[in-house]
Amino acid sequence: MLITSLNRNCYEGVIMNILVVGANGRVGSHLVNTLAKMGHTVYAGARKESLNFTNANIHYFELNLLADLKEIIQRIMSVNLDAMYFTAGSRGKNLLQVDAFGAVKVMQAAQAVGIRRFIMLSSVFALQPERWNEEFLQNITDYNIAKFFADHWLVHQSNLDFTILQPGALQENLGTGRIQINVTEPLSNSIDNVVDTLSRILSAPNTIGRVITMADGDIPITEALN
Amino acid sequence: MLITSLNRNCYEGVIMNILVVGANGRVGSHLVNTLAKMGHTVYAGARKESLNFTNANIHYFELNLLADLKEIIQRIMSVNLDAMYFTAGSRGKNLLQVDAFGAVKVMQAAQAVGIRRFIMLSSVFALQPERWNEEFLQNITDYNIAKFFADHWLVHQSNLDFTILQPGALQENLGTGRIQINVTEPLSNSIDNVVDTLSRILSAPNTIGRVITMADGDIPITEALN
Repeated sequence: MLITSLNRNCYEGVIMNILVVGANGRVGSHLVNTLAKMGHTVYAGARKESLNFTNANIHYFELNLLADLKEIIQRIMSVNLDAMYFTAGSRGKNLLQVDAFGAVKVMQAAQAVGIRRFIMLSSVFALQPERWNEEFLQNITDYNIAKFFADHWLVHQSNLDFTILQPGALQENLGTGRIQINVTEPLSNSIDNVVDTLSRILSAPNTIGRVITMADGDIPITEALN
Repeated sequence: MLITSLNRNCYEGVIMNILVVGANGRVGSHLVNTLAKMGHTVYAGARKESLNFTNANIHYFELNLLADLKEIIQRIMSVNLDAMYFTAGSRGKNLLQVDAFGAVKVMQAAQAVGIRRFIMLSSVFALQPERWNEEFLQNITDYNIAKFFADHWLVHQSNLDFTILQPGALQENLGTGRIQINVTEPLSNSIDNVVDTLSRILSAPNTIGRVITMADGDIPITEALN
């Protein structure tokens, strides 16, 4: 990490090298841009280079979640990373290999390489199966199971400094910069708000070891995370 | 448990109440009969009563692996069990909900109710993803991932007295009563041999805490397990 007091966009003045896994996704693509604007060096991890990132801080990083662990470790060792985000998802098309086991391999690789900080984009109540029969969630049981196994691994089987963010349904609405956390109902989330929350978790060490449910709300993001 | 020295069919003279989850399956249906012939009281756990078991020791036990944990616990509490087998599988049709998370819920229920002995039918190398690219296994990655999560839960997330049996491909051949264990290649297995091995694991406390790969072989089953 490079400490700087000059870059005012950077929280706490720390510029990091960050890998975003799932950089072509709805959340990942925005997160890559947000982190780059904050001054971080961002590796946009995806199977194919399908998006054109124009910020010079962004580097395409080929990463195939179907590869075996050894290959994923080798890829991750090829850059010097301070933190990783997992925002990949198969949109129901390959839940076992991508959302569940792909995530596990990335965690195993992070651990093998010694990258401690790991921020996971999950889904509301993924660790609370007793809520999956509720109306909001009852059609995404397979997805919830995949996220359950991934989140569970991160909490119980890894030694990573994790934060798990669990928003409810994602919406293409404009961000308000205001959210609520520890929600008891699965309310909607603007993608901008989710991206902003993910980016601010990086500089909020109090979120380490926490599973945070969220939704759009009334509290400024930084304050909500505190 | 009822201790008897009269029942010569029963290993070590212990008659147990046993639940076989997946009693309509290729392995489960045979296992139910084998255990009943040994003198055990067997609860044939399945979603529907589709097989006619004629042995008076066998009782159909309705169990829906898609039910939530609370309901599964209530079902399992309705009988007094000494041990459980998990032999259920969706044959690729519902891997997340049956083979993976269904298994997890059954383990959680066993633990909640205080049934300690839990014997899992798994698949060869399910806990060794580095082998899944080999020819024998490369077309069943989704299945292996589902079994990986189930086995991993049993080893690392439960406190059950588990044994995991991992045979290679199952064949409808006649049993030979002879197997090999700790195999390094995924060779074929007669279903009879797998069933006999599962039944004998129950009276082999040295198998507790072990993951056992197997295939047809030259060693009598009891000897192989010792």
